[in-house]
Formats: sequence, structure tokens, C-alpha cells
Amino acid sequence: MASTAGQVIKCKAAVAWEAGKPLVIEEVEVAPPQAMEVRVKILFTSSATLTSTSGRPRYGSDTRVPRILGHEAAGIVESVGEGVTDVQPGDHVLPVFTGECKECDHCKSEESNMCSLLRIDPDRGPIYHFLGTSTFSEYTVVHVGCLAKINPLAPLETVCVLSCGISTGFGATVNVAKPKKGSSVAVFGLGAVGLAAAEGARVSGASRIIGVDLNSDRFEQAKKFGVTEFVNPKDHDRPFKRFVIAEMTGGGVDRSVECTGNINAMISAFECVHDGWGVAVLVGVPHKDDVFKTSPVNFLCERTLKGTFYGNYKPRSDIPGVVEKYMNKEMELEKFITHEVPFSEINKAFDLMFRGEGLRCLIRMEN
Amino acid sequence: MASTAGQVIKCKAAVAWEAGKPLVIEEVEVAPPQAMEVRVKILFTSSATLTSTSGRPRYGSDTRVPRILGHEAAGIVESVGEGVTDVQPGDHVLPVFTGECKECDHCKSEESNMCSLLRIDPDRGPIYHFLGTSTFSEYTVVHVGCLAKINPLAPLETVCVLSCGISTGFGATVNVAKPKKGSSVAVFGLGAVGLAAAEGARVSGASRIIGVDLNSDRFEQAKKFGVTEFVNPKDHDRPFKRFVIAEMTGGGVDRSVECTGNINAMISAFECVHDGWGVAVLVGVPHKDDVFKTSPVNFLCERTLKGTFYGNYKPRSDIPGVVEKYMNKEMELEKFITHEVPFSEINKAFDLMFRGEGLRCLIRMEN
Ligand SMILES: NC(=O)c1ccc[n+]([C@@H]2O[C@H](COP(=O)([O-])OP(=O)(O)OC[C@H]3O[C@@H](n4cnc5c(N)ncnc54)[C@H](O)[C@@H]3O)[C@@H](O)[C@H]2O)c1
Ligand SMILES: NC(=O)c1ccc[n+]([C@@H]2O[C@H](COP(=O)([O-])OP(=O)(O)OC[C@H]3O[C@@H](n4cnc5c(N)ncnc54)[C@H](O)[C@@H]3O)[C@@H](O)[C@H]2O)c1
Ligand SMILES: [Zn+2]
Ligand SMILES: [Zn+2]
Ligand SMILES: [Zn+2]
Ligand SMILES: [Zn+2]
Repeated sequence: MASTAGQVIKCKAAVAWEAGKPLVIEEVEVAPPQAMEVRVKILFTSSATLTSTSGRPRYGSDTRVPRILGHEAAGIVESVGEGVTDVQPGDHVLPVFTGECKECDHCKSEESNMCSLLRIDPDRGPIYHFLGTSTFSEYTVVHVGCLAKINPLAPLETVCVLSCGISTGFGATVNVAKPKKGSSVAVFGLGAVGLAAAEGARVSGASRIIGVDLNSDRFEQAKKFGVTEFVNPKDHDRPFKRFVIAEMTGGGVDRSVECTGNINAMISAFECVHDGWGVAVLVGVPHKDDVFKTSPVNFLCERTLKGTFYGNYKPRSDIPGVVEKYMNKEMELEKFITHEVPFSEINKAFDLMFRGEGLRCLIRMEN
Repeated sequence: MASTAGQVIKCKAAVAWEAGKPLVIEEVEVAPPQAMEVRVKILFTSSATLTSTSGRPRYGSDTRVPRILGHEAAGIVESVGEGVTDVQPGDHVLPVFTGECKECDHCKSEESNMCSLLRIDPDRGPIYHFLGTSTFSEYTVVHVGCLAKINPLAPLETVCVLSCGISTGFGATVNVAKPKKGSSVAVFGLGAVGLAAAEGARVSGASRIIGVDLNSDRFEQAKKFGVTEFVNPKDHDRPFKRFVIAEMTGGGVDRSVECTGNINAMISAFECVHDGWGVAVLVGVPHKDDVFKTSPVNFLCERTLKGTFYGNYKPRSDIPGVVEKYMNKEMELEKFITHEVPFSEINKAFDLMFRGEGLRCLIRMEN
């Protein structure tokens, strides 16, 4: 690979020319990495739902096209720019949509992973970038702070999903909601992120994991992720929606994790936790104008509401350890990957996603 | 005192006959304690603001009159009902508006103090009771679960204020917000509860304690409670209100504690905490129809919102220890008591309170 270092690489990428239209695979030029940047050869990427069904990115206000989408991926470092010492050509890496500079107040805080320098910003970096990574390309350039260097023995086609949604859901439960052994956990939204939250609850020893989704088709699959009971809000009268869970659990669940992006689900997820000790965690990305509304008495009765970004994991410091958790069989990842297509058929992955079929479709690069 | 056990006691009480009208001191009959009840001779009580300026109780939906108000007090056990083993005649006690049965899920949980049996319920107990204690009377009867048995050497005229507001504010900071040494804390509302929250921040080693109040007269006094800086929201343009604190602190305070009961202050208190790690705690009792509204993105950026009831203290288990903290000079209480009147002049205490003067007015019983 040393032969390409310092040169512009011509390679294939899937370019979004118009919101809602199929991606077009065409040749692009990827410049060598600048200071603190790394050029990564992407081997696997996945279709993850940071785009809504209209095909518009949900993060950020900007929907500029043309751009290269994709942010869940795994690859190998091709070359590094000036000042990069943490990774070198040949290292196995997961690009992450949020970064860790290791120097700002957030990176220095034990509690935050919202790096001031590298947190999600759709306007950052070379044009065409989406969430700072643009992984629907054979090569991409990212800031070294957005790369987790992982165990080279880990299968990239599997750990690829830790690059976004699965770490987010799993971390939301184990790092933020922190259910105790034997407790009850409600998970709102049984997509990949919600099922990863359920996997986190299972690994934490929760005795009841209540899945909530508007799509009853999600229920069968959810059982594999430890979900023990199901509620479809559509089966209940609207005004009593949140009370259903309180009734099932004698007052409310101990923890809830919202992974839908829907504001009503966010409010229900909060209001369904037990008074005195209940903790609700918001994960879903809301619409720009959504307003969270609740009676302040719900807080006064000692309920806690938190939110999380990437499951509170710091990409460089924490993700290598999550990969080890998978290697040690402390968490399962294969079950999240329900489909696979070659890069040339990337639009099939989007069709599956828009139809709400499966969880993650692995996209295998062919270079 | 044994002579009165088992008999009806005739004594003086201050009775509220009409909302907003002065209390009338008259003779009442206090029945002997029933099973699990305790009759307490009240020595000191205080005017605390669970009533709004209209004189209507803010807790609960019920404003029945006539009733005996008062819930911050200190006294001595006169006699006990069947089954009471924890206290005996002569014990020094603080009646508390919320109780601890020691048997329900909440009492058994390390996290909650919202006892299912004895949590605040204006409809509970003998008629005339207010918040389960009715301390504006020379004798009152309360459930044993609502009594903290304290060190008999503690001066009742001082520790009396731990029976409600001061424990609430102090506990809101030390038990719930938990500021780290050197951190910044904003306190909204500089009444007795807010100043107790500030005292908690001071004791926790906070390096900046920012007081926020609409009444600039509160500021001078607040300095005695460790408040280092002041903001009056009236001095700032409304739409930028919450940004003022973000600007003073480079992004937000580490912790905030809201002690106003005003919904706008609750929202500002949440929105002014730092992303990544900020924790806001609601203490004020809102109006029944208030709605807490904020963008869900404020949670997603890793802010936490909690609420507390009586500072998360369990009355029987924890309050004796708070009294010891005072005895060991780890917290100051004298500075909260700014006025004193004999029971016969109880209406003067209310006049002070309604004019917003001072913090707590001690009412000395004369029996
Ligand atoms: N906070 C973060 O760092 C972060 C990171 C990645 C993804 N996300 C967000 O997490 C959310 C979930 O991602 P995903 O990939 O699992 O999405 P997905 O679309 O695969 O799954 C969402 C599920 O929620 C269900 N749902 C929608 N509205 C609902 C409602 N009102 N009640 C109950 N169920 C409802 C849908 O039927 C669907 O099954 C998205 O909003 C995504 O943007 C957040
Ligand atoms: N959660 C509990 O268990 C509990 C227990 C006791 C008291 N409380 C509540 O705590 C609150 C404070 O009690 P207190 O005795 O200190 O009351 P107080 O009336 O003495 O003090 C309240 C202060 O808040 C200020 N204030 C009002 N609106 C404001 C706003 N929008 N912005 C800034 N400041 C504002 C007032 O000027 C006043 O100085 C009350 O709501 C009371 O009901 C709650
Ligand atoms: Zn940083
Ligand atoms: Zn993602
Ligand atoms: Zn109890
Ligand atoms: Zn009170």
C-alpha cells in the first residue's frame, strides 16, 4: 500500500446527487491526508439509518448534495498525514462519526464524550463528507481523532457495526441507564440501536426487557436480543399509552432507553419509569422542531432523564475495549447483520432499510 | 407528661378558617395516638413557604378549611400508640411532611425516599392535618414513620428548620446534584431552600456558586451562604436569559439547583448546565398545570435532569445524621433563622413571609 501514500487516489464511491434518488457509483479522487488526518481503505460499511425515509440526513441542518454518505465502517489505514502518531499504515480501524481530540474539556472529563473539536459537525472536513467519515467510498480521509484502532484479529466484517449504532445502543444501556441485575428495562424502538440497547440490558442481567415498537414485525426478531415482552402502542388507547407499562410493572420500569427518534416515544419513555429511582435515556435523534413536554412533577417524584451521544463512549479510548468484549464473547454482534451486498449493489441495502427489513445490511467493498 | 397519656388533650392551635385570612388561635382537642401514631408536644415551629402568597397550600389539590397548617417543627414525644417501638415519651423528634415506613419498595430502595405508605398526601390522617404534621398546635399526632428521633443534646430551636426546607435544599445539592470539588453551581431562587442548596454547594467545595433571583434584595444575604456571584434575570433580555450563565461560565455550569417553584426558572436551570456532564435538579413545587418544555437535543447533548423530594433524605434513617452534621459544625443552621415570634403572634411570621422578608421565622410555643 506504500505506493499510494502522498498521491491522489482514484477510486469508486457511491455519490448522493439528489435526496431520495439512488446513489450513483462513480470514480472520485481522494486527496492525501493533511496534518492530523488519516486516509483509510474501507473494507466494509453498512447502511445505517441516519437518513430518514426521505433519504435526507437527520443529523445537522444541512442537506447539501452531492455528497458521499456512510458512517458505519471498518477499514485499514493506507497512509497518515503530518503529526499522526497514534495509527500507522496497516492498522485496523473503525471510523467514528464523533471524535476524541484528547485535549479539550470534554475529552478530559470522565463523564463526557462530546469532544469540542471533533463532535459531529456536518460542515467539517473536505467537501462531500457526511458526519465526518463518508464511508461509502473505497478510500476516505478522516481526522485521526475519529478513528478507533482495534485488535487486528477482530473480524472487520462483524465489528464494523460498532462504528455507530450498536455501540450507541449498547452504551446507552451499560454506560448511561446502568440497570441493576434483576431490574426491568423498557426499550422503545426495536431497530438495530434499540436491540443493541436490549443486548446491553441482557448483558447487565435485567430480568424483564420490555420492547416497544409500532411495527409488530420487529417482535419476533427482538426475542433473540433478550426482549422478554412486547408492547405495540397501537394496541392501546392513545391517552393511556404510557400507563400500560406502569400497569405491567407495578408502577413503572426501573430503566428505559428510547431509540426511535420520535418525540412521543421520548415522552412516554420518560413517563413510564418508576418514581423514586427510574432513569430514562434518550438516544433517538429528534426532528429539529420537536419539543419535549412533561409535567415537572414527574421530575419532582425523583425520575431522572438523560440523553446520550454514541452511548457515551469515547471513540479512541473506549471502542477498542468494546471490540475486546466481542472477542471475549461478552456481547454478540453477528445477529445484528441480517443482510449483505457487494458495493456495486449498495442501493439494494437502502431499499431494505427503507422497507424497514432487517437490521444492518453489510456492504462489502470490492477493491 | 405521663399524666396526659391516653387522654384527649385540650390545647391551643392556630386554625386557618379562610384562605388568605389571618390564623385564629383557639382551643382544640387532640385525641390520643392510634396504632403506629405518636402524640408530640411541639416546642418550636416555623413559617415555611408551602403556602403561596394567597395563603393556599401549594402541595396537593385540596384546600379544605378549617385546618391546622405548619409542617416545620421540633418537639418532644408525649405518648405513643399501639405498636410504636422506635420512639418513647421524652424523645426529641422532628416531624417530617413525608414519611418512611421501612417496608415498602421505596423504603427498601437505596435510591428513593418516596415511601408508598407515608409520602405526602394532604388527605391522610386525622382531619385538620396539613402535610401529615399540622405543627401550628401545642400538640399534634403523627405517624411514627414521619418522625426523626434526634440527638437530645441538639438545640430544638435551631434544628427545627431541618424538618423541611433546609434539609430539602441541602440534600438537593449533596445527595442529588453532587457537585465535585472546584466545580460551578447555579442556584435558582435564594429563599431558605435555595440558600440551603448554596450551603450544600459550599460544603461540597464548589468554587463558583452563582445565585439567580428576581429579587435583588436577596443578594446581600446570600453572600453569607457562600454565593459568589449574582444574576437577576430581569437585568437581561428575556430571550437570552439562559445564555447569560453559559457566557459567564464558558458553556454552562456543572450543576444547577432550582428552588423557585417557577416553571421558567426550572427550564432555565436545566438549559444552563454544561453539555457533556451538566446535572440540573428541580426542587421547587410547580403549579398544577405547569408544563416543562425544552428541545430534546438538550438531553441528547448529555445533560441530566432530576428532581427531588425532601432532598432525597429518608426522614428516619437520614435526618438524625444531618443533625449530627450540624452538631459537628459541618453545616451552619443559625443563619437561616432571621426572625422569632411567640406563638400568640404567629400572624406576624406570616406577614414577614408574604412580604418576602428574611428566611425563616421561628415560632416559639408557650406551653
Ligand atoms: N444518540 C446517538 O448518538 C445516535 C447514534 C446512532 C443512531 N441514533 C438514532 O437512534 C435511533 C434509532 O436508530 P435505528 O438505526 O435503530 O433506527 P430504525 O429506524 O432501524 O429503528 C427505529 C424503530 O423505532 C420504531 N418507532 C418509531 N416511532 C416509534 C414510536 N413512536 N413508538 C415506538 N416505536 C417507534 C420504528 O418502528 C423502528 O422499528 C434513530 O433516531 C437514530 O438517528 C442516535
Ligand atoms: N421538593 C421538595 O421536597 C420541597 C420541599 C420544601 C420546599 N419546596 C419548594 O422549594 C421552593 C423554594 O422554597 P423557599 O421556602 O425557599 O421559597 P421562597 O419563596 O422563600 O424563595 C423562592 C425564591 O425564588 C425567587 N424566584 C421566584 N421566581 C423566580 C424566577 N423565575 N427566577 C429566579 N428566582 C425566582 C423568589 O424571588 C424567592 O426569592 C418552593 O417552591 C417550595 O414549595 C420543595
Ligand atoms: Zn476533544
Ligand atoms: Zn449511525
Ligand atoms: Zn415506605
Ligand atoms: Zn416545607
